[in-house]
Amino acid sequence: MDYTFRYAGAVDRARNGFAAQGMMETLKAQMEVLKPGFCEITARIRPEVSQQQGFAHAGLAFAIGDSAAGFAAQSLMAEGYDVLTTEMKIHLLAPARGTSLVARGSVIKSGRSLTVAEAKVFAQSGDTETLIAVLLGTMMAVTPK
Amino acid sequence: MDYTFRYAGAVDRARNGFAAQGMMETLKAQMEVLKPGFCEITARIRPEVSQQQGFAHAGLAFAIGDSAAGFAAQSLMAEGYDVLTTEMKIHLLAPARGTSLVARGSVIKSGRSLTVAEAKVFAQSGDTETLIAVLLGTMMAVTPK
Amino acid sequence: MDYTFRYAGAVDRARNGFAAQGMMETLKAQMEVLKPGFCEITARIRPEVSQQQGFAHAGLAFAIGDSAAGFAAQSLMAEGYDVLTTEMKIHLLAPARGTSLVARGSVIKSGRSLTVAEAKVFAQSGDTETLIAVLLGTMMAVTPK
Amino acid sequence: MDYTFRYAGAVDRARNGFAAQGMMETLKAQMEVLKPGFCEITARIRPEVSQQQGFAHAGLAFAIGDSAAGFAAQSLMAEGYDVLTTEMKIHLLAPARGTSLVARGSVIKSGRSLTVAEAKVFAQSGDTETLIAVLLGTMMAVTPK
Repeated sequence: MDYTFRYAGAVDRARNGFAAQGMMETLKAQMEVLKPGFCEITARIRPEVSQQQGFAHAGLAFAIGDSAAGFAAQSLMAEGYDVLTTEMKIHLLAPARGTSLVARGSVIKSGRSLTVAEAKVFAQSGDTETLIAVLLGTMMAVTPK
Repeated sequence: MDYTFRYAGAVDRARNGFAAQGMMETLKAQMEVLKPGFCEITARIRPEVSQQQGFAHAGLAFAIGDSAAGFAAQSLMAEGYDVLTTEMKIHLLAPARGTSLVARGSVIKSGRSLTVAEAKVFAQSGDTETLIAVLLGTMMAVTPK
Repeated sequence: MDYTFRYAGAVDRARNGFAAQGMMETLKAQMEVLKPGFCEITARIRPEVSQQQGFAHAGLAFAIGDSAAGFAAQSLMAEGYDVLTTEMKIHLLAPARGTSLVARGSVIKSGRSLTVAEAKVFAQSGDTETLIAVLLGTMMAVTPK
Repeated sequence: MDYTFRYAGAVDRARNGFAAQGMMETLKAQMEVLKPGFCEITARIRPEVSQQQGFAHAGLAFAIGDSAAGFAAQSLMAEGYDVLTTEMKIHLLAPARGTSLVARGSVIKSGRSLTVAEAKVFAQSGDTETLIAVLLGTMMAVTPK
């Protein structure tokens, strides 16, 4: 699908929104790419975000996958709109082992009020990427009160 | 439903598994209760786990809700079994504002290999609890290799 | 939770909507109960709605579970509103064997535009009811154009 | 991804399983394609499978989407294995209007016991196809008892 930004300041809006999230700082996550209908977020796999076997915690894959899907959805919204996840499903496909995770979110269907978006999360180790999670959920456009 | 532990060391197994998760330490989460088929986990709402409006990030609700559901499922498993989330859905119902979140996970259907479990997450503020998220997902029993 | 109808004609609106669905007639489904925030729908298990082992098809559990959740949600909406499922998850917990299925839908969180609702589906055999499916999803209030 | 059948009789197994489902006959659904990791199922939009506005019922999109995902998953299983949906999520994206629905199911991750599969459902009208639903769920390999 071929999308275009509906707001010239979409990239700045996303970067400011991302920077305002204490959680992204805590997880050492970074927004790498924002294009119309697409967002990429990465985070290193560190002991601070591990589960009991030393792999990355499902909560990390969820947090960056959900954010990538959300910012992909927001990229298609007009000026003044923020985005809220109403529901999200995650499938965990393989252990998240490696040096970092990369989440790539994209829009499936963009509507006036609701957007359906997905994300794929890969574990990176050297030059290899392994798909470790897929997410599918609903985003709602909201205007700040 | 009336469940019983299938392993006398179930509470210690859960506490050890919880303590080995770097993510739970990073989120300052604590396991408060483990009973047969039930688990309660809390976490304070701090700037380090916030989203852009200062409320708790969806990633926090997911992380403690998913863990509460997972440890509820594990509580019914025999000795030597660990638990893995295969998929989980979260609905975000209201802004997570207040002093802390509490997640209560419980088992809906316990099977040999798969368990279906749910969690409800509440925001606490003074004496008030507000339901801010519900989760429903699938857990798989695994033996450590 | 304690709900009340927001439209005095809610029961008639639901019965008319139900009767207008060719699919419910094809599945021989019947609306048994509509109360504020709650709906019960039944369907007999017949060869025409079976899967390959002779049990009721997952599509039957979905169709009546989704409808029960939807009409539960609609029961709390003002005059002139219809309801639409935006997304729905179903867990299939046990084979759907017996004489009939009964789906009980109820509202978890009722909002202006979106409602989160769930349904439990039981297989009935003599005096016994077995939980065979749970559903959790999102309903949107729409005005007919 | 590049898959191959693990059982030479995979196509016949699928066609026999499909033919044994009374529900598929009731919905006038047809299996059009079975390839390794992929299945296509169609059904005409008829008054017998309508919702209250005359479009195809969500239950039809679910039934053929779930079946397409399930037979895609089964296509990669060894001799003697049948497939069971353990959970499935459907997003309804647009009204299902037109002459027929086509569901295309494909495998995302094939595992020993669990397979994650998705389906896209399109409404066909003349030469046009409109995406009306996406499904994402879990299939379990089972041996008949």
